[in-house]
Amino acid sequence: MTAVIGHRNPDTDAITSAIVYARYLSRTGREATPYRLGELNFETQYVLREAGLETPALLESLPAGSEVALVDHNESAQSLPGLETLKVVAVVDHHKLGDLTTAEPLYLRFEPVGCTGTILARLFIENNVHIEPLEARLMLSAILSDTLHFRSPTTTDVDREMVAFLAPIAGIADVKAYAMAMFAAKSDLGDTPAETLLKMDYKVFEFGGQPWGLGVVETTNPGYVLGRKAELLEAMRAEKAASGLAGVLLSVVDILEETNRTLVLSEDEAAVLRAAFGVEVSGDEADLGSRISRKKQIVPALEAYFA
Amino acid sequence: MTAVIGHRNPDTDAITSAIVYARYLSRTGREATPYRLGELNFETQYVLREAGLETPALLESLPAGSEVALVDHNESAQSLPGLETLKVVAVVDHHKLGDLTTAEPLYLRFEPVGCTGTILARLFIENNVHIEPLEARLMLSAILSDTLHFRSPTTTDVDREMVAFLAPIAGIADVKAYAMAMFAAKSDLGDTPAETLLKMDYKVFEFGGQPWGLGVVETTNPGYVLGRKAELLEAMRAEKAASGLAGVLLSVVDILEETNRTLVLSEDEAAVLRAAFGVEVSGDEADLGSRISRKKQIVPALEAYFA
Repeated sequence: MTAVIGHRNPDTDAITSAIVYARYLSRTGREATPYRLGELNFETQYVLREAGLETPALLESLPAGSEVALVDHNESAQSLPGLETLKVVAVVDHHKLGDLTTAEPLYLRFEPVGCTGTILARLFIENNVHIEPLEARLMLSAILSDTLHFRSPTTTDVDREMVAFLAPIAGIADVKAYAMAMFAAKSDLGDTPAETLLKMDYKVFEFGGQPWGLGVVETTNPGYVLGRKAELLEAMRAEKAASGLAGVLLSVVDILEETNRTLVLSEDEAAVLRAAFGVEVSGDEADLGSRISRKKQIVPALEAYFA
Repeated sequence: MTAVIGHRNPDTDAITSAIVYARYLSRTGREATPYRLGELNFETQYVLREAGLETPALLESLPAGSEVALVDHNESAQSLPGLETLKVVAVVDHHKLGDLTTAEPLYLRFEPVGCTGTILARLFIENNVHIEPLEARLMLSAILSDTLHFRSPTTTDVDREMVAFLAPIAGIADVKAYAMAMFAAKSDLGDTPAETLLKMDYKVFEFGGQPWGLGVVETTNPGYVLGRKAELLEAMRAEKAASGLAGVLLSVVDILEETNRTLVLSEDEAAVLRAAFGVEVSGDEADLGSRISRKKQIVPALEAYFA
């Protein structure tokens, strides 16, 4: 039995890709079960509810030597604790290659596309594996989520092609309406605690040998999030101290207007933002303009600065 | 322009996969040129001569930031010096994942099969890219070479299927006769200097944080190689000192009988061989039985021992 896992602080791609890849593996001769490494955000909850699916079980650890397949991530800091003691048999991902190493040959499939769901759809097609409507719906949802319905600069032609290919199989006639419903669900933040908002889409990266926490809130209603700035800064301060981070950033991304206003905790972060992005920072907020992709625009700029 | 490179001390798979993948990339929209990182062995020279191809140019370095695609390897110790300063855009490989990391998303395609040529053939097929007879011949040669015509335990069903698929395209009616001709060419060691024999198929690995050099001579005529034991041990001693290695091993593999007699330089190596393989070592030779695959049988046992 192979456990299939997406990254911590899961988003829609991490969850749906674990479900879909586990089904793909089981169908092609390797028994597999999907798990989640954290709580689902409102968008993902909406996607699973519409698909009539239960939430995958939460995984906290696995015995050393267990077989595991990773989707939508490959860095140990974003994965199950003790990843280095597990046997990674497969990785399907669209991120940069991090600190993963293995003792034996394995299956790796990385493509510089907008979404893991796009790569999974290609796997089904290439190997002539039948795609069920449910699976098409999950892959399509992941692509719309990761590319912000093709607004993100991470979007590629292949992502667009796969959505066009999957929509009729999924039985989704109006892709735009479905995407808007997903984004509305995501933006319904209600009384979500500030700590949860910070961690909703949050990853730790190593820059210059030091850990930085980068959170993103993608929303159609940035005013609501920015209205809770004081609470959010307090949650960032607590997280920075608790996890011994060199810096922590929270970007509030307006999905529809494609803007990024990033909360700035202290001069540690302000100095780096000024140098890495050439922006002015005054007070507790930086306008990062149209840099809405952490993967394609935020992380590379920070990496270039620290290198 | 992307430079496509196989590993140092190139074998047939490293060279032919660089040539074939460069052609694949050029045909699918990315201009690419194959290079070699060292001298060709006699088998590879035979394969290129039969194919009517020139030897790719030798590459010694590239300016920082240059685009490079790796085939048949991924570890920096086996690649171009300064790999960490280059932009790796794609890797096609069938080995374990080593120390590679990247700053940006890339194309990675690893499969636990016997040969990079097998994965390349799948790439052509999946993406409906026409395979020319020359390309089929090169991929088939690599698979026969890496799997010792299906004798190696690294062989998978996919390797066999691809040879069956490629042979008619390549116009090779008698695959067995072609494989024997390749192996005879490889075994024609003539007056090859001992240093060259040691480095013909040679890789440096990290075990327990220390570098070990592992050479293999695959031959249909082991008696000839073992008859030059004294010279070879001297070459191993010189290499160990010059490169500051913790150990150096040279396995003489009889391709037809599927046996491995490994030269033992000193008690450093003897103690490790006894513990890692449970074999007796007396004098300057160890009988490693039918362990003929460095990747599948030698390296994993050494890794398990040092871990």
